[in-house]
Amino acid sequence: MNYRMITYILGWILIFEAIFMAVPVLTAICFGESAVWWFLATAAVCVSIGMLLTKIKKPQNMKLYSREGFVIVSLSWIVLSVFGSLPFFLSGEIPSFIDALFETVSGFTTTGASILSDVEKLSKSMLMWRSFTHWVGGMGVLVFIMAFVHLSGAQNMHIMKAESPGPSVSKLVPRVKTTALLLYMIYFVLTLAEFILLLFGGMTPFEALNTAFATAGTGGFGIYNSSIGGFSVYNQVIVIVFMLLFSVNFNSYFFLIKGKLREALSSEVRVFFGIVTVSVLIIAFNIMESFSSFGRALLDSSFAVSSVISTSGFSTVDFNLWPELSRTILVLLMFVGACAGSTGGGMKVSRLMILFKNLGRELLVMVHPKQVKNIKLDGHSVDSETVRSVSVYIVAYLAVFVASLGIISFDNHDLITNFTAVVSAINNIGPGLEMVGPAANFGFFSIPSKIVLIFDMLAGRLELFPMLLLFTPAMWKK
Amino acid sequence: MNYRMITYILGWILIFEAIFMAVPVLTAICFGESAVWWFLATAAVCVSIGMLLTKIKKPQNMKLYSREGFVIVSLSWIVLSVFGSLPFFLSGEIPSFIDALFETVSGFTTTGASILSDVEKLSKSMLMWRSFTHWVGGMGVLVFIMAFVHLSGAQNMHIMKAESPGPSVSKLVPRVKTTALLLYMIYFVLTLAEFILLLFGGMTPFEALNTAFATAGTGGFGIYNSSIGGFSVYNQVIVIVFMLLFSVNFNSYFFLIKGKLREALSSEVRVFFGIVTVSVLIIAFNIMESFSSFGRALLDSSFAVSSVISTSGFSTVDFNLWPELSRTILVLLMFVGACAGSTGGGMKVSRLMILFKNLGRELLVMVHPKQVKNIKLDGHSVDSETVRSVSVYIVAYLAVFVASLGIISFDNHDLITNFTAVVSAINNIGPGLEMVGPAANFGFFSIPSKIVLIFDMLAGRLELFPMLLLFTPAMWKK
Repeated sequence: MNYRMITYILGWILIFEAIFMAVPVLTAICFGESAVWWFLATAAVCVSIGMLLTKIKKPQNMKLYSREGFVIVSLSWIVLSVFGSLPFFLSGEIPSFIDALFETVSGFTTTGASILSDVEKLSKSMLMWRSFTHWVGGMGVLVFIMAFVHLSGAQNMHIMKAESPGPSVSKLVPRVKTTALLLYMIYFVLTLAEFILLLFGGMTPFEALNTAFATAGTGGFGIYNSSIGGFSVYNQVIVIVFMLLFSVNFNSYFFLIKGKLREALSSEVRVFFGIVTVSVLIIAFNIMESFSSFGRALLDSSFAVSSVISTSGFSTVDFNLWPELSRTILVLLMFVGACAGSTGGGMKVSRLMILFKNLGRELLVMVHPKQVKNIKLDGHSVDSETVRSVSVYIVAYLAVFVASLGIISFDNHDLITNFTAVVSAINNIGPGLEMVGPAANFGFFSIPSKIVLIFDMLAGRLELFPMLLLFTPAMWKK
Repeated sequence: MNYRMITYILGWILIFEAIFMAVPVLTAICFGESAVWWFLATAAVCVSIGMLLTKIKKPQNMKLYSREGFVIVSLSWIVLSVFGSLPFFLSGEIPSFIDALFETVSGFTTTGASILSDVEKLSKSMLMWRSFTHWVGGMGVLVFIMAFVHLSGAQNMHIMKAESPGPSVSKLVPRVKTTALLLYMIYFVLTLAEFILLLFGGMTPFEALNTAFATAGTGGFGIYNSSIGGFSVYNQVIVIVFMLLFSVNFNSYFFLIKGKLREALSSEVRVFFGIVTVSVLIIAFNIMESFSSFGRALLDSSFAVSSVISTSGFSTVDFNLWPELSRTILVLLMFVGACAGSTGGGMKVSRLMILFKNLGRELLVMVHPKQVKNIKLDGHSVDSETVRSVSVYIVAYLAVFVASLGIISFDNHDLITNFTAVVSAINNIGPGLEMVGPAANFGFFSIPSKIVLIFDMLAGRLELFPMLLLFTPAMWKK
């Protein structure tokens, strides 16, 4: 294990975290809030430790193997979250450290589940920091660092693999650094577009920026207790459109820029929009009774479906109160999640496609044992390594899920609350049903349950293995 | 596809079904019930068709390939259920055909879920037929036939594989026929032992025989509305003990007879009893408050845990009313199920052990990519074919589960009812929670939902693939 290299990268993480704090610092200055000092203090601590870890002595051996890739990713996210929670905790705006950590992890992992019963009490700079953690976490902080810091060559792929969502990672261009930069440029442009369109809809710049950050990361922290419910229909539609846009594999945008329309409309993207359309229609018909017009039912249904499948977790209405069919579809969509290579969470559409195609293939093998053929996605055959890792992923997913559900059941809340709280955490969504519905929050859970959910959010964002390996004894043996 | 051989075996199935009807016929004669005529009529139909299919012309080509094995198994169970439901339907004791079919499938698959709100209204011969279907289905009807009818040689293994529960089938002795006979002898002796012990507890012979049949198959149909709740503590304990005994891999009894104690206590058996012990204790402490003594809490907890993990589905109290922690543990146990090679359903302990061991192995591969080693169970390494089929099984399981949940959600009942109804059907348990709790029944579901649950019960009993292959177009192509 190359410990020196691990601490070196953690140092860079802290330096970048200090730079990220410029956003809430500027917000605090704009609004004349005293919280500015807590951000400056935290940034100072981050920079000091970061400098210590990076500058004293550069690591001589910069080699990274796959296992260092996993450790770096999981530790980076933990360090990022612990230091990121300090402003909330030190300022006293979130008095409990576990709560502050929960909120920060929920932010960086783009979950958007909150322990706050009244978000409007937070100062504007804290709200901005919350939303900005979504933006940073959505695309991946290590990918960001790789876009700016020169790490040695090809081994960065190990980090990118461990941090990027989806069953496999493809480099858009040969160099990892350039790929990272390209992805962040697409991300930045899309966020800017949403920001501007929201301004046109009458949002204040503060509202528009927060909403754009939280949509881009498919996070879902709102700055009002009513989430997006208080904004105009125009703005709700803009948020729906961008939740879906940020759920699409970013490779598609790259292909789109290159004019390759067919590659852009990959089978994953088509299946994703197919699922969205069918779900929206079923739910709209199911909830229609309680609405004056089908248009309104369609709007609310579209918002809820987009919010859940993109794993954003924004809300305009309390879907916990909808009929059981709609609730069930939403819970099922929570597992599905967005496309691979997007900022969304969940199992990812392409992973499910691989699972189903492989199931079909195995059934075929049972019928004709001698006709073995590979499964294909978009004309490319999926290598058996990917199929195997997807199969293992699903078992790991179930294991984490069941263990988490078992532990938080000791709080003795109702089954649907527990079940959807874990679904919501591990898929980085935000709200669930019943006591964790869109109109509620996660504040009531016991400390052990909150720790489990914090673990689930991180495990979900990093697609399980980096977090699970952290607790595998063999990882730490020589 | 060897169609002639398929119809030949289906013919035998019908002949044996007619023979099975001797049990309710004798019951009807003992109690002087007119239902005897419906059983005789059904038996006559079965024998006629059966003779026609088997005797006219013996198939010249008796070769069976793996895919014929699957088709034979799934069609056999469907034919068995359809004809088995005729006495209920024709006699008018269950006026709807779908309900009669549901009840019969629930019987043969050893699920024990009922559509009857008042079982005590059924005549005694119908009750006996219900219980006896559990006994027949528990060990597998094709295994039974193979014990008596000479089918050609080694290919029977394909049938045994497709019908027997668990990730892999081991023959106790070289010949399939002798293995089948041995298994049925163990089964018969254990059932007889329970019958006698229940008589000692003051049950009437009718009560004891019904209860012994339903326990042996881990079925769970009760002959009273209170299930086992009205019987003495002694009898409840006997049922607990035998529910657990019938959940153990029958190979263990074979080893026990041979004096090989170490082989008998396989790791699967140890893990199974470990799960039972831990669950019983947690639930006993959780429900203690509402009981006068810890002893009583322990008894009820033991009964519920044994009933659920053995997938019997008997009840003594309504565990739907227990605290959420206990309910959650019971739901999780529903997925686990019994040991492979037992009469119990569920995913099977050994299958879960293989999944977890494989997950651990894959995590190790991520740490040390070059150290690949096989996983082991009881000192034997598990071949990669078994690991792969278990991985595919879990995906098939989830696919069937999600599709079923989606369809029955259109009934608009609450999520826990729908969820546990599907869990209960696919794992062949019987009761679930809420509207399908131990004190309730499945009668209220719509016809499409009942058809889905019938499919789930069959798919669960046959471990998915035979039923899924029936709907795979490639299966029927030349």
